[in-house]
Amino acid sequence: MIKKFLMTPGPTQIPSEVLLASAQPIIHHRTGDYSDLFARVNENLKYVYQTRNEVISFASSGTGAMESAVVNLCSPGDKVLIASCGKFGERWRDLSQVYGLDYDYREYEWGTPVVPADIGQALADDPAIKVVFVTHSETSTGVVNDMQAIGAAVAGSDAVLVSDSISGMGSAELKTDAWGIDVVVSGSQKALMIPPGLAFVSVSAKAWGLVEKSTLPKYYFDWTKARKALAQDKPTTAFTPAVSLMVGLDKALDMIRAEGLEQVFERHIILGRATRAAVKGLGLELFSPDDDRCSSVTSVKVPDGVDDNKLRTLIRDKYGVQLAGGQGPIKGKIFRIGHCGYYNYTDIIVAITALELALKELGHPVELGSGVSKAQAVFGEEMV
Amino acid sequence: MIKKFLMTPGPTQIPSEVLLASAQPIIHHRTGDYSDLFARVNENLKYVYQTRNEVISFASSGTGAMESAVVNLCSPGDKVLIASCGKFGERWRDLSQVYGLDYDYREYEWGTPVVPADIGQALADDPAIKVVFVTHSETSTGVVNDMQAIGAAVAGSDAVLVSDSISGMGSAELKTDAWGIDVVVSGSQKALMIPPGLAFVSVSAKAWGLVEKSTLPKYYFDWTKARKALAQDKPTTAFTPAVSLMVGLDKALDMIRAEGLEQVFERHIILGRATRAAVKGLGLELFSPDDDRCSSVTSVKVPDGVDDNKLRTLIRDKYGVQLAGGQGPIKGKIFRIGHCGYYNYTDIIVAITALELALKELGHPVELGSGVSKAQAVFGEEMV
Repeated sequence: MIKKFLMTPGPTQIPSEVLLASAQPIIHHRTGDYSDLFARVNENLKYVYQTRNEVISFASSGTGAMESAVVNLCSPGDKVLIASCGKFGERWRDLSQVYGLDYDYREYEWGTPVVPADIGQALADDPAIKVVFVTHSETSTGVVNDMQAIGAAVAGSDAVLVSDSISGMGSAELKTDAWGIDVVVSGSQKALMIPPGLAFVSVSAKAWGLVEKSTLPKYYFDWTKARKALAQDKPTTAFTPAVSLMVGLDKALDMIRAEGLEQVFERHIILGRATRAAVKGLGLELFSPDDDRCSSVTSVKVPDGVDDNKLRTLIRDKYGVQLAGGQGPIKGKIFRIGHCGYYNYTDIIVAITALELALKELGHPVELGSGVSKAQAVFGEEMV
Repeated sequence: MIKKFLMTPGPTQIPSEVLLASAQPIIHHRTGDYSDLFARVNENLKYVYQTRNEVISFASSGTGAMESAVVNLCSPGDKVLIASCGKFGERWRDLSQVYGLDYDYREYEWGTPVVPADIGQALADDPAIKVVFVTHSETSTGVVNDMQAIGAAVAGSDAVLVSDSISGMGSAELKTDAWGIDVVVSGSQKALMIPPGLAFVSVSAKAWGLVEKSTLPKYYFDWTKARKALAQDKPTTAFTPAVSLMVGLDKALDMIRAEGLEQVFERHIILGRATRAAVKGLGLELFSPDDDRCSSVTSVKVPDGVDDNKLRTLIRDKYGVQLAGGQGPIKGKIFRIGHCGYYNYTDIIVAITALELALKELGHPVELGSGVSKAQAVFGEEMV
């Protein structure tokens, strides 16, 4: 018997309560019942976002919501700054290219964070920059950027700050309003604990100012249409929403509220800390920083002499634990343990156990328990 | 006790088997398991589409897939023809406007179909027209256009024919290849019997020719990216798919294959015929044509002296049957009975019973059974 432990940074494990909520008979989206649910979801999303801004939702993957930020904020030829440290930072560059923006692309070494002071300097050097695009939690490496410092670096300028927090929202602290993050993109299939298919974006007053001037064409992802639908007596979406996912989200947000946002973030910090301790304990090297901020994904260098694909296949097929590989230039060089969302100590202990056993089976020298015991020690101090 | 009968043209009723399939533990989308499922779904979609063309899927509502047709086929200033007979025909005009196309918008009276010969004439008059946009099943009125004749009218020209078959796919016959429909847009929440959140588009070789020349910007809805992901050894999507909906779709398509496509269409024809017979039997007037082609939605004029909102609210709250109202200029003047998807004789008998009882309660003269008996008579001849 195999029990499956999905430990990838999206999709993530989904609580049975959420799966069953989504499996209820469908309701129509132009009804009072749906509007009540949608209003509640919007309030709870604001709670998780720590914002008073509107949060707009789309039936799409997170990439769709990222594209929505580009087409609603920008006009052709606009100067924008992109601070990237991985695959999802590159996506802002690709989008900027497609939409004819004049972009300044700054890449930091994968596995290291963006340097906030560089953003402040770039804005001082070029006050024409209208938008700054950054990644909060860089899923491809596990790096979580210091959004508080980045927010402070942008605060004095006219630029609008956009954060891709798809794998960060709900797992790595982000004080949207307090830190001055104008636009925050997130997705459903990470720490929000539901399947993929919904994406969200919060929009500040400063950002709405740019929206009014934007001339790029948009229809499905038009924020102004979405805002109008949200502002109705019975709030709704401009186009048919993914109703069953929204019903699941309502349940998942209930669970987050019941646990309490501070406790949710604390749990993720401990999960990251335990995972890093275990990885080091069994003699492997971290690729993501050894930093409590990196609470969504832990990435690990594949040890010399071990084939990444063989390792992850063995861990999956024999032990039921699914890890993620590297992407782009670091494919085969790292593997990633996702722990954003519905995860607690049980998942980490199982994942590290499977990792130890599989490494041993592949001939890599491992003392069984050398990783697990380190994770146990962390959990012994702070239980999650 | 209220038993709920959702009789709207999207969302539609979802079989419990499909709801429970979607409620299974989520699987990762970059795995062999998912690719196998996705390949099977694609084959079954082609079966329902009656096409050998690729069918591309998006995590979005149907509108997103409509927008994808505009941005992948067109360039700014392109001449296009739009033949519209309702609210969803207007959407092609709105999209064409947003994307700066040179559009010729022909509107036919709501409740009546597009005249195919007009399209042939327009193309003969102006060979510069690159794309013709039409609605197959106009959800706002119940009209189903004669796509075979429209296909024939476009066949001799260089124009690419695009059909919005969101509420038609799987309920009103559409022979994509045999009738020469280059691009067919559909959505998940109608006759495909799953919740909203997935949309599809088939693309012919002729259409790919236009795609190569298109200069409108696109990213999330980029067909070329989608085609590349589909063509891989392990077919996938360019961006994270709505996994749980796709698992439900796999089950729903199994059910369609088991019933057989011809039988599915025949069932819908009988459902429409029985509904129209019942409506006339109880002395109401049809708004949608009294035509077997109109097998997705039956629209009915609200009788004089009856308040549409009161009528539908009573039918919903007391009898558990949810009907749809009119949209745009015909709001309050018609109501709509949706029967595309997971519907059989039981649903029609219940809906007509509720309609009769509610009309009587509101003081409209109705002989109880006058509608139901007519539907019974149709089902007595051909059971569905």
